[in-house]
Amino acid sequence: MKNKLIIPGRIVTNNSNDEILLGNAVEIKDDTITGIKKWSKKEIQSFKGQVIYAEHLTLVPGFIQTHIHLCQTLFRGLADDLQLLDWLQLKIFPFENAHNRASLKYSVRIGINELLLGGTTTILDMGTLRYQEEIFDELINAGMRAFAGKCMIDQNDLFPGFKSNTKSELNETLQLAKEFHNKSDLIKYGFAPRFVLSCSEELLKETRNMMQDFPGSIYHTHSSENQYEVAEVRKRFGKENIEFFNDANILSDDVVLAHCIHLNEKETGILKNQKTRVAHCPSSNLKLASGIAQIPLYLKNGISVSLGADGAPCNNSLSAFVEMRLAALIQKPIHGADVLNAKTIFKLATIEGAKALHIDDKVGSIEPGKKADLVLINLDRLSHSLSNSPEKIYSDLVYSASKEDVIDVMVNGKWVVRQKKSLLYDENELYINSKKQLSSLLKRL
Amino acid sequence: MKNKLIIPGRIVTNNSNDEILLGNAVEIKDDTITGIKKWSKKEIQSFKGQVIYAEHLTLVPGFIQTHIHLCQTLFRGLADDLQLLDWLQLKIFPFENAHNRASLKYSVRIGINELLLGGTTTILDMGTLRYQEEIFDELINAGMRAFAGKCMIDQNDLFPGFKSNTKSELNETLQLAKEFHNKSDLIKYGFAPRFVLSCSEELLKETRNMMQDFPGSIYHTHSSENQYEVAEVRKRFGKENIEFFNDANILSDDVVLAHCIHLNEKETGILKNQKTRVAHCPSSNLKLASGIAQIPLYLKNGISVSLGADGAPCNNSLSAFVEMRLAALIQKPIHGADVLNAKTIFKLATIEGAKALHIDDKVGSIEPGKKADLVLINLDRLSHSLSNSPEKIYSDLVYSASKEDVIDVMVNGKWVVRQKKSLLYDENELYINSKKQLSSLLKRL
Repeated sequence: MKNKLIIPGRIVTNNSNDEILLGNAVEIKDDTITGIKKWSKKEIQSFKGQVIYAEHLTLVPGFIQTHIHLCQTLFRGLADDLQLLDWLQLKIFPFENAHNRASLKYSVRIGINELLLGGTTTILDMGTLRYQEEIFDELINAGMRAFAGKCMIDQNDLFPGFKSNTKSELNETLQLAKEFHNKSDLIKYGFAPRFVLSCSEELLKETRNMMQDFPGSIYHTHSSENQYEVAEVRKRFGKENIEFFNDANILSDDVVLAHCIHLNEKETGILKNQKTRVAHCPSSNLKLASGIAQIPLYLKNGISVSLGADGAPCNNSLSAFVEMRLAALIQKPIHGADVLNAKTIFKLATIEGAKALHIDDKVGSIEPGKKADLVLINLDRLSHSLSNSPEKIYSDLVYSASKEDVIDVMVNGKWVVRQKKSLLYDENELYINSKKQLSSLLKRL
Repeated sequence: MKNKLIIPGRIVTNNSNDEILLGNAVEIKDDTITGIKKWSKKEIQSFKGQVIYAEHLTLVPGFIQTHIHLCQTLFRGLADDLQLLDWLQLKIFPFENAHNRASLKYSVRIGINELLLGGTTTILDMGTLRYQEEIFDELINAGMRAFAGKCMIDQNDLFPGFKSNTKSELNETLQLAKEFHNKSDLIKYGFAPRFVLSCSEELLKETRNMMQDFPGSIYHTHSSENQYEVAEVRKRFGKENIEFFNDANILSDDVVLAHCIHLNEKETGILKNQKTRVAHCPSSNLKLASGIAQIPLYLKNGISVSLGADGAPCNNSLSAFVEMRLAALIQKPIHGADVLNAKTIFKLATIEGAKALHIDDKVGSIEPGKKADLVLINLDRLSHSLSNSPEKIYSDLVYSASKEDVIDVMVNGKWVVRQKKSLLYDENELYINSKKQLSSLLKRL
């Protein structure tokens, strides 16, 4: 891999001092950032490797989304205006159930394509019931940084055809974890039982036990998303979601719970004590009529919060920018205009995601020694603030930027997007074949 | 003006049957749509005028935003994380007060540029205290369809330097209305007293009386946006905003009230009976921590609701797409996932805006006899639904589209945007000079 020198107008380092550096260059050897400093013209001229002059662009760390369903990207726009349980029962479970290898492949590809074009370089993906190895193959081929795992379901009242049995779920998961955990530097296993209502207690507990053999893996599930889900959990177990997970000895600092909207004080205390991570998905939470998570309360309690776009059919985008803006805006009428300012939100979408996944030694900021997951973004446009203050960058990133401002994206030292074009995919081919796959899938329903 | 024939893949007519037409062509003579039908190749070849082949694009009516502050565009990103009254006192009133003719001109130009690039073809603008004729000149030069008027302020506890006296406010407004109302086919006067707390009762009432001489004009003000504003109105007058306006005989079907968040049942009843229009600004309402307007209740009562992006510093965008998505999403956790579906929301941003301004005989839908305010948008992209159903268009437009999907824009039969580029402005010149103007303005503070 060629050495690279990127010379952007500004660098949002996201380091512990929140430094914004002007006129510095970032030196990259193989997959790693090796230096950040001002270079003289002479030094630049004698640099052996690729030099990227990007004076009009701003360099930010790649975005990290800690709750994604790549397998659902094909279903965008086909499941609007439904609350979670109807959405699962009437649309998403039947759709996921109708996937074959080819349709899953394209769903994942267009998801990865959209995420990378929008500057997201790391995801935690929920997977799907069958053909999980296709998702791993696509992630590995794309060179995306990811935690992924087979979605586990051993009971399903909503759509009984979409499940397997406990033993085979555990076996299949074990084989996949053995094959794919650390298969590349970029891929780790994310154990993924879907949610309490679709998993036996045995499945949830045995999955937790299984994780011991896969250090660095993550336990990824949904919790407390919807009022009917919460009521049903209460009815079945006489307790709340988080209490249930806690009593089953599942919670720890390697667990990421998507949503966490309907929590009582006791549950918030459990998340705090167990250092369990919350993946906040504001678009999805609004669109599925789920509610608004008490993110300011969680942050005040030191609970880890990061962001995710969830799946395309409950969003209907996979943009980190859309989630950042909404995460900031929806809290303000409740908690005041100054809650969750732009800088705080930007961190949730970057370094806090890295911390949630225990990879903040590798990514989430731009510092020597870290992996080069980098995004060049054009904030010097009329659609952003025209102020000369460096601090305006956070406002631009959170309140006015969109995925269309992303120009170049690098994952682990390798360019995946240049000049707003994917270096991985032929978008025309993706478009034609994804439409074909969707059409066939809808016929299979 | 040359005749034009646009042949898009699909036409979202927005007519009374909500027809979506495939393979039809729209014929335009001068400023008017003269026919919509399928044309044979032979007919197309013999058409005398410009033929636009846009098979991969969708034609929609231009968006109509009924609450905009063009004069504030320059202040984007400089007033984040403040509630309304602090935002006005500490930032926006001082900023507007510091405008000179040149800075106002550029603020308006970059606002118009952003709106047109995003497919908004009609606005109701609030103006500013001084140099209002600059705003009219810019709107007329751009050929945008607009209701605009001098913002009137004759008392200002928040920032005493930013006001004038009642007589001169009324005189200046009268002169401006005489000069600019119907100055072109596209321009009408929008009388614009700022809000109850910044206007004497005399000013509010005399403005209403003045309107009689300007048929087709609009009375445009803010109401019930913020809890402190509402409390202060109650303290001063012993009544709520809407009661105050009603008792002053101001309300009618030619009044557009921006926001209307904090209304009681009686006030909702007044809006219904007086057929007064609500301009809903969801981004602004969240960002300024104002609250969430009860839009489903208003619509159920037959109250006119349309959308607006408000000003750049409380949004921080001027995109109709951002407002549509948010208007849909924020109601769902409160009223259920199926409230305000995509088609309903799309209408609020188009034909309902036209009705609010009493120009639905001219714009808001694509029908023969209407003015050609048209937008060609690219929904055949991987970031939208891959379904072949024509109905998916509404989902795309509201839930996944952005201003970056807008390709071509026509106002009143004249192209203003082609291939995503403004035909009106040199963006580089705008960028350089807007930055200069902002920098000078901040020094004047």
